[in-house]
Amino acid sequence: MEHTASTRELGEFGLIARLTSGLPVNAGVIVGVGDDAAVLTCPPDTDAVATCDAQVEGRHFVRAVVTPEQVGRKALAVNLSDIAAMGATPRAALVSLMLPAETSIEWLDGLYGGLRAEAAEFGVAIIGGNVAATSGPLIVDVTLLGQVARGRAVLRSGGGVGDRLYVTGTLGAAAAGLLTFGGRSPTGREVVDSVLAEVRAAHLTPQPRVNVGIALANTGAITAMLDVSDGLAADLAHLCARSEVGALVDSAALPIDAATRAVAVAYGRDPLELAMSGGEDYELLFAARAGTDDAVAAAVAAAGGTARAIGWLTEPALGMRVRGEDGAEAQLLARGWDHLMSPT
Amino acid sequence: MEHTASTRELGEFGLIARLTSGLPVNAGVIVGVGDDAAVLTCPPDTDAVATCDAQVEGRHFVRAVVTPEQVGRKALAVNLSDIAAMGATPRAALVSLMLPAETSIEWLDGLYGGLRAEAAEFGVAIIGGNVAATSGPLIVDVTLLGQVARGRAVLRSGGGVGDRLYVTGTLGAAAAGLLTFGGRSPTGREVVDSVLAEVRAAHLTPQPRVNVGIALANTGAITAMLDVSDGLAADLAHLCARSEVGALVDSAALPIDAATRAVAVAYGRDPLELAMSGGEDYELLFAARAGTDDAVAAAVAAAGGTARAIGWLTEPALGMRVRGEDGAEAQLLARGWDHLMSPT
Repeated sequence: MEHTASTRELGEFGLIARLTSGLPVNAGVIVGVGDDAAVLTCPPDTDAVATCDAQVEGRHFVRAVVTPEQVGRKALAVNLSDIAAMGATPRAALVSLMLPAETSIEWLDGLYGGLRAEAAEFGVAIIGGNVAATSGPLIVDVTLLGQVARGRAVLRSGGGVGDRLYVTGTLGAAAAGLLTFGGRSPTGREVVDSVLAEVRAAHLTPQPRVNVGIALANTGAITAMLDVSDGLAADLAHLCARSEVGALVDSAALPIDAATRAVAVAYGRDPLELAMSGGEDYELLFAARAGTDDAVAAAVAAAGGTARAIGWLTEPALGMRVRGEDGAEAQLLARGWDHLMSPT
Repeated sequence: MEHTASTRELGEFGLIARLTSGLPVNAGVIVGVGDDAAVLTCPPDTDAVATCDAQVEGRHFVRAVVTPEQVGRKALAVNLSDIAAMGATPRAALVSLMLPAETSIEWLDGLYGGLRAEAAEFGVAIIGGNVAATSGPLIVDVTLLGQVARGRAVLRSGGGVGDRLYVTGTLGAAAAGLLTFGGRSPTGREVVDSVLAEVRAAHLTPQPRVNVGIALANTGAITAMLDVSDGLAADLAHLCARSEVGALVDSAALPIDAATRAVAVAYGRDPLELAMSGGEDYELLFAARAGTDDAVAAAVAAAGGTARAIGWLTEPALGMRVRGEDGAEAQLLARGWDHLMSPT
């Protein structure tokens, strides 16, 4: 019977009891799931950080092509990426579910399996949430709380002219992964299975740069940081607007891996375009004061990550510019993924 | 043009800029809307509290009969009630919106008007959120953060045998209000406009007992507390289960106002049933150590509220019992509103 139970048969309290049994906790949790609200310690000399982001069925994921574990992991990962971009340490998550009547318990067990695994990997407690019925698509809305040493959160607004601009990891892989769900490649070129798996994993289970974000904040050299969710150009535009600077990006320096290049070619797309405006990279884009290259490199390496210098912050009047491989400069437009204007 | 704009035309960033302009803030906000995450102070010697609750169109509200301002107020109020039930002070909210494509800007302006008004009334900052498109109903999912003196959060689990049981305000009015949306009263009895307005207001714009909750926690006399959202009997069952006690409720003591009684009679319902299991009262149900009646009464009065002693906590083996007006006792069942099993 258990394997055919629907959420309707279990009811709200039965479902909550099942999903929340043995949730990950940590030392900061005083009261987790089960009271009117969760209670957390406020460690001395820290600030609290908070963010939320939702995964909506049909917009952010399609149940036919993703496992519930992947949805759970990503629902938390996209929030971990925002906390990482503050240079903060993630602590505790609240999970708000909007469930269609036909949702199976097995699917929800899988979702919570993914949430638990991602939370455990990053030392995050799951401390609360909500379950509501909906006539629409399944939605997983996660709020993530974190902490950072007092006054040390890294904002988008601190960048200055002459700062070096960096990005972690690689760009465009998630966008390449998304391309491959659209069917066979239009050029007829074969994409080998290992490449397919690599770019799809980038799309389905992004790796938030939590340790790198914390290490970067600890250097004291980082003037501005945000995560790349809307695409490099769009997110750089946010950084420039907030910091009141321009930027020059060296396109030859953009970190694009071989799998992304292979998929781009097979699908008749420019790898640079995927890197510039693909979106959902969940890498960290940051600016560091001039002369801190070694400190930045050491911090990133010690945190087990990679980062590439891709340009500089410039006078605001210059706007955003990109230098091509031929050395010529052009205006860089903030085209990115606008969640309301573009269908997924 | 502005008055016919759709969210699709404005786009995500235009919409966010419009909705978040001039949001309420408070002294604890270091960074509000506009960065990867919000940043809040962690005052010394406090704990943080966190809760979330969603309002789903078609389940929790119907756009034809409520104003967007009412939806906004209630979306925050139900969370304020949870924070109040911890004896905590609400501080900051994150607002996560799931929007159908046809959502009008006017409706969202109204929603945010309600959110802003409720937040301002309780000194709450709106510090962040998310906007996602959905093919389903409109959803407003709010996470509310609060603070409480270290170790002083009032849980559901501290109740002891012999404690006096209280409830604030009155019970059943929201359930009576919901009845009146079902059409003309089946008995043909007229419900006067002022009564209709009163019970509908209880349903549409509940008044969270924030000041009373804080005042009660400050007495040090309160052993257990929660808010009445699923109905008195169901929520009392939660308190009893967590505190490992039974309870005896004196039905004659239940606070039921004249408007609720009038509507119940007109709709052929027992006022006691509405009070016991109507749900959505958003009053505080709490237990206080024996001999603290005066301290409790003084705290509630000083906070501008009311509370009524409605029974006692008993040995767990006795379960939940109710004493009728004739003095006879019967078992009290935890019938309440289970959000997944009962259609709205």
